[in-house]
Amino acid sequence: MTTSYRLLGALSFALGVSALFPDCVNGPLKNETICDTSASPAERARSLVKLYTLPEKINATGSDSPGVPRLGIPPYEWWNEGLHGIAGMYTNFSDQGDYSYSTSFPQPILMGAAFDDALITEVATVISTEARAFNNANRTGLDFWTPNINPYRDPRWGRGQETPGEDPYHLSSYVQALIKGLQGDSTDPFKRVVATCKHFAGYDMENWNGNERYQFDAQISQQDLVEYYLPPFKSCVDANVGAFMCSYNAVNGVPTCADPYLLQTILREHWGWTNEEQWVTSDCDAVQNVYLPHQWSSTREQAVADSLIAGTDINCGTYMPIHLPGAFAQNLVNESVIDTALIRQYSSLVRLGWFDPPENQPYRQLGFDAVATNASRQLAYKAAVEGIVLLKNDGILPLALDSSSSLGIFGDWANATDDLLGNYAGIPTYLHSPLWAAQQLNLTVHYAQGPGGQTDPTTESWLSIQPAADASDIIIYIAGINNDVEFEGDDRVTIAWSGAQLDVIGQLATLGKPMVVVSMGGGQLDSSPIANNPNISALLWGGYPGQDGGVAILDILTGKAAPAGRLPTTQYPAKYINQVPMTDMALRPGPNNPGRTYRWYNDTAVFEFGTGLHYTNFSASIPSAPQQNHSISDLTKPCNSTRLDLCAFASLAINVTNTGAVTSDYVTLGFLSGTHGPAPYPKKRLVSYQRLFSIEGGASKTATLNLTLGSLARVDEKGNTVLYPGEYRLEVDNGPLASVDFTLTGEQKVLDEWPQPPANRTGKGVSGFEGYFVPGYGSGQVVL
Amino acid sequence: MTTSYRLLGALSFALGVSALFPDCVNGPLKNETICDTSASPAERARSLVKLYTLPEKINATGSDSPGVPRLGIPPYEWWNEGLHGIAGMYTNFSDQGDYSYSTSFPQPILMGAAFDDALITEVATVISTEARAFNNANRTGLDFWTPNINPYRDPRWGRGQETPGEDPYHLSSYVQALIKGLQGDSTDPFKRVVATCKHFAGYDMENWNGNERYQFDAQISQQDLVEYYLPPFKSCVDANVGAFMCSYNAVNGVPTCADPYLLQTILREHWGWTNEEQWVTSDCDAVQNVYLPHQWSSTREQAVADSLIAGTDINCGTYMPIHLPGAFAQNLVNESVIDTALIRQYSSLVRLGWFDPPENQPYRQLGFDAVATNASRQLAYKAAVEGIVLLKNDGILPLALDSSSSLGIFGDWANATDDLLGNYAGIPTYLHSPLWAAQQLNLTVHYAQGPGGQTDPTTESWLSIQPAADASDIIIYIAGINNDVEFEGDDRVTIAWSGAQLDVIGQLATLGKPMVVVSMGGGQLDSSPIANNPNISALLWGGYPGQDGGVAILDILTGKAAPAGRLPTTQYPAKYINQVPMTDMALRPGPNNPGRTYRWYNDTAVFEFGTGLHYTNFSASIPSAPQQNHSISDLTKPCNSTRLDLCAFASLAINVTNTGAVTSDYVTLGFLSGTHGPAPYPKKRLVSYQRLFSIEGGASKTATLNLTLGSLARVDEKGNTVLYPGEYRLEVDNGPLASVDFTLTGEQKVLDEWPQPPANRTGKGVSGFEGYFVPGYGSGQVVL
Repeated sequence: MTTSYRLLGALSFALGVSALFPDCVNGPLKNETICDTSASPAERARSLVKLYTLPEKINATGSDSPGVPRLGIPPYEWWNEGLHGIAGMYTNFSDQGDYSYSTSFPQPILMGAAFDDALITEVATVISTEARAFNNANRTGLDFWTPNINPYRDPRWGRGQETPGEDPYHLSSYVQALIKGLQGDSTDPFKRVVATCKHFAGYDMENWNGNERYQFDAQISQQDLVEYYLPPFKSCVDANVGAFMCSYNAVNGVPTCADPYLLQTILREHWGWTNEEQWVTSDCDAVQNVYLPHQWSSTREQAVADSLIAGTDINCGTYMPIHLPGAFAQNLVNESVIDTALIRQYSSLVRLGWFDPPENQPYRQLGFDAVATNASRQLAYKAAVEGIVLLKNDGILPLALDSSSSLGIFGDWANATDDLLGNYAGIPTYLHSPLWAAQQLNLTVHYAQGPGGQTDPTTESWLSIQPAADASDIIIYIAGINNDVEFEGDDRVTIAWSGAQLDVIGQLATLGKPMVVVSMGGGQLDSSPIANNPNISALLWGGYPGQDGGVAILDILTGKAAPAGRLPTTQYPAKYINQVPMTDMALRPGPNNPGRTYRWYNDTAVFEFGTGLHYTNFSASIPSAPQQNHSISDLTKPCNSTRLDLCAFASLAINVTNTGAVTSDYVTLGFLSGTHGPAPYPKKRLVSYQRLFSIEGGASKTATLNLTLGSLARVDEKGNTVLYPGEYRLEVDNGPLASVDFTLTGEQKVLDEWPQPPANRTGKGVSGFEGYFVPGYGSGQVVL
Repeated sequence: MTTSYRLLGALSFALGVSALFPDCVNGPLKNETICDTSASPAERARSLVKLYTLPEKINATGSDSPGVPRLGIPPYEWWNEGLHGIAGMYTNFSDQGDYSYSTSFPQPILMGAAFDDALITEVATVISTEARAFNNANRTGLDFWTPNINPYRDPRWGRGQETPGEDPYHLSSYVQALIKGLQGDSTDPFKRVVATCKHFAGYDMENWNGNERYQFDAQISQQDLVEYYLPPFKSCVDANVGAFMCSYNAVNGVPTCADPYLLQTILREHWGWTNEEQWVTSDCDAVQNVYLPHQWSSTREQAVADSLIAGTDINCGTYMPIHLPGAFAQNLVNESVIDTALIRQYSSLVRLGWFDPPENQPYRQLGFDAVATNASRQLAYKAAVEGIVLLKNDGILPLALDSSSSLGIFGDWANATDDLLGNYAGIPTYLHSPLWAAQQLNLTVHYAQGPGGQTDPTTESWLSIQPAADASDIIIYIAGINNDVEFEGDDRVTIAWSGAQLDVIGQLATLGKPMVVVSMGGGQLDSSPIANNPNISALLWGGYPGQDGGVAILDILTGKAAPAGRLPTTQYPAKYINQVPMTDMALRPGPNNPGRTYRWYNDTAVFEFGTGLHYTNFSASIPSAPQQNHSISDLTKPCNSTRLDLCAFASLAINVTNTGAVTSDYVTLGFLSGTHGPAPYPKKRLVSYQRLFSIEGGASKTATLNLTLGSLARVDEKGNTVLYPGEYRLEVDNGPLASVDFTLTGEQKVLDEWPQPPANRTGKGVSGFEGYFVPGYGSGQVVL
């Protein structure tokens, strides 16, 4: 998807048309198989597509599908968004009253920090419920182009906020929970909505130093592809996701929307995503980009043919509808290819009940009373509380406040409203800023605007901040970044606190009063100057906490809630961005790359992935460790599955004890490390996690970390997933709080043999543009 | 100056206060020397400053100077802008009626392309006249923070549009003409307004890849400093400019606002800018940046002391007023330093007539009838016409149109309004878009919106463009960049046409109709795909042409006016930005630097500096060449000046003949080249220019290129300006159209011995931030 300027124009197409349904009772199709609810979705779709002329088929390849009036097929807008609540892209919110708002949850980066898969399913269930209510009111569609499940590889990424974090296991687990909530169970007669896993694949850069996403060719080794970039997408397949989106970028030379290796060989054949109701959409105008600026296809007609043939079933935009007539005229594509794409589209709509009697469909009965319910509001609040991460606390938190307290609240996020939401947001039920939340407490609040955030270097604000700070007993500074500096289309150019902020924070700290800093935004800021300042008592990270974010922050500060979120990304030192070009896709350290993510970063993080303090302390133990030695053949023998990676290894019970006084959740993180498989070895890797709830002081609860053979396996240079003999250690939490060692013996065993890409993949070029679209400072290694 | 978000807040201070005057008739000062018009400005200022208490003096160091009520000194806002017309920063435009608009000229980059110094003086005279009228109505101040005269070193620079171009001789000549128009003659009893040469020095980068202007340390060799970065500023001194602005960046380790070498040794001592009415302001909040992020001074108090002592007389912002009390308390600065600064400020106001009877001052009589006069409007139009550059023409231009013609006008600039102005604009008299201008012609115009410019990759617009193009006989595509992609605070990350534009241009070209592309914006776009497309008949560059820009463009397209502008910057190929980091300040080619500007770029430009076609052809000859051989001692002997560089060498008459039929202006460019002085040698360098006007077909006119010894001199590695023996060639125009060779013999002669910077310049550091603000991919050479 691209930035929002295009939306105003497009909205006019969408309003009032997105939820018209074909009339299978009295319409022209009533006697066709498409209207026969006893036939399979694919049979029904096939019968419909047979009735289309070629021009009607071509018209249906665009995302703004006009329908076929002569057959009573209404227009359908495939482009709908629902990243953290139904989003104001193609959703038509009412100006007031019913349907003028919905529930706006925190951004995925903060929900990821909760490490609570059940929470994610609950959230996604609310989103799909509200989507159905809006669809019934003709205000949005039935498929949603969410989740963004590319791993957050580089801290500069403008859209990292849309993801749950940097770890591929974490994302894989999260996305299963999410799709379940969005789509419902795969055995349900109707899908709640269709989810779309994007951006397939290797998309995690907007525009770094002139390397635009539309033209970037991500050079990714097969090892990194299988080990890091693809697991969340494979997990989407395992969750039976209804749609994929191919991305703007190329991978190893081929634009993904025109790449049969990715879309056919890997996605459909190797992973088995072959259900006919599953379709691939292009990112918006990505089919055009196959021509320019990728210059993969020699003409516009070739580009649409190449994309359709490769397996792109829907073209977000208009490029296919415009240029497929020419492609057919030039015999670049034949009609069976477009038939396949349309059968996928209409099978999907059948599974959504589009052609079925509404009275049989519970989702079709939902109205606005299902939207923004008290339970949903409470869930949005809970999601924010669960995600917020405590990074430093000298004991000042939770704040001891009474009616005589005076709180000074400063920083650019103190009075944040829309900033709370992040991007791809809808219209929230309400927007509760930190200042608003503070003003609900029975005490004195001093507030002064400024300084103006990352891009504002001005100092005038100190004139108003100083007297307000002088009058306060306790200083709270809430600021960081927002969608002015991290956004779709633009990556960050610094990960340091900038503008006048450090000067203002430093001056506030010199007052010698209790002082708390809350760092906001999706990407981490190097907060070492704050962590190292002895006059600053506490530091939290609050992400984009959604409609009730201010209340969540204040409740944590005041102890009404206890923090238990964990950083879902590494907080790198500011110098990191000068050590590796964003175009370098390699995870492992190299000459111009200190390594990426907690797995491979070879220097000291400011705060590590998984960091998160509590208002209490926890201990952990592993009461019954797995046996010490395992023969690989013994492990794989009893497992008859074609998916050896899913075979169980062990379910480890972890006993967690709250050794302090404050009741608190605790996220049990299971990391694996050790010398097994090919060097270099990652520092460790997350293999399981479970959030435990409300453990009282002195009490214990038990988490279960389920490990499969896939948890133990590593990936070789060809992309094969292999179980290796060697030493293994499972650690609980950073620190760790507990650990257990074990050994695998015998011959290594390939759990998954990776299909190799074809040897010579070259585009058909575009004359006249040689050397025009130029790659940047990339130092990625070509491995293909 | 920084971006505009700060301005709303600040405006409230400024409204209604900027033009209050002290009352020297009945006020408390009436008997003081400050009110004695027979005393010198410095004497008068000194008498006033003596009356100030230290806190009153400290208050007066900020740009928003509160005045001293007890003495009847009203507030004065030093921050006013007038880049190409009085600008809507601290100017209070009325909502309607009088003072609701003024004359908005083209951006300097387009006025630079006119290579017409007399035009610049005329434009600046209108600006200062309108400024006085607004000041008399209490709507703006008397000093203006213009011009931006840093050479346009790198095509990415977001503020290159504010400058006349890349060549230091061109800028030096332009700025003399400009200051004359803004300030008036130095012998006038009152200054029209005070001009401010900014940003001193080495400032020409906003934020390249995390290298923010606030923290960037420009590593510049003494050779490059004297040869390239400083000549326009020296020219400002020669023009007796009233003010300088020190910049955000550091040069060779020292933030310029805290650098006594730049502000005292070079500016005041070596260049002799010692008039007491001349002052230095900091860029806005640059004094804060001396502390953070430069970390040059160890504390906030040290930063304000260091800046004041170095010679910064006014602090844009509030940092000095806030922190000077602490600096005085710590004995970091003594009162004589602040006295010097204030005497400079008030001497300047005396020269502006601030303390003098209005009835004696012609500028004080100006009212709104002096604003936006017909002559001024016509001048704004003329400036646009003179600057527009014709780059390609297969003969289609000028267009032969009649009432049966149908013109298709497309591209993101076709219906441009505010885009016409560029940044630092005021409210124009009107905004005439190209579409509007086309609609005034007696013919049929087809227009369709889109595509959406550089950052919009969408293709939907083709749906409406195609039928409009089909219906047209002639296609005009007007687009390029605007202040969305080049702006203060952000540099460009690509110099290629991007978005969906090349696709749309290419599709339009396939229609096979006469087609013209007009490339807009300040920075050049690599237009080789357009230049090389045989179906595109003509290409022009239109910059930011101001309030009447659309009319200027259409008048040139239709032949009502003839183009004669010349490119003021090199049009580099797209790959250029990947060949050299923006942080590399070196002009000469090096390992990661293909060289900068037409002087040193070692590859082939798409269009060279100085390129500009006409609707006719010109020949040139040099009727009386200078003698062949010159002895250096003979050249310097008769010259008794302390400024040997200003001694005359030759006045060369150039005879220019219009060999075609169309009456046209012609810009006579004189370039010098040859093997003299130290290798490597620049390709050539501009040493003189003169625009000739309205040469009829078959007629001739004569230009005079005045060369001084400074024109022939080069700069050695220490920064000395030296006249070298060797071979010289003067060429007329690119091509060239004519040339003459001559030889200098004898011993080399130093024309200007450059003061060397102190050996050990180190800041006092800020603890706790080590390694936090990190330099980027710079490869600049440290020469100090």
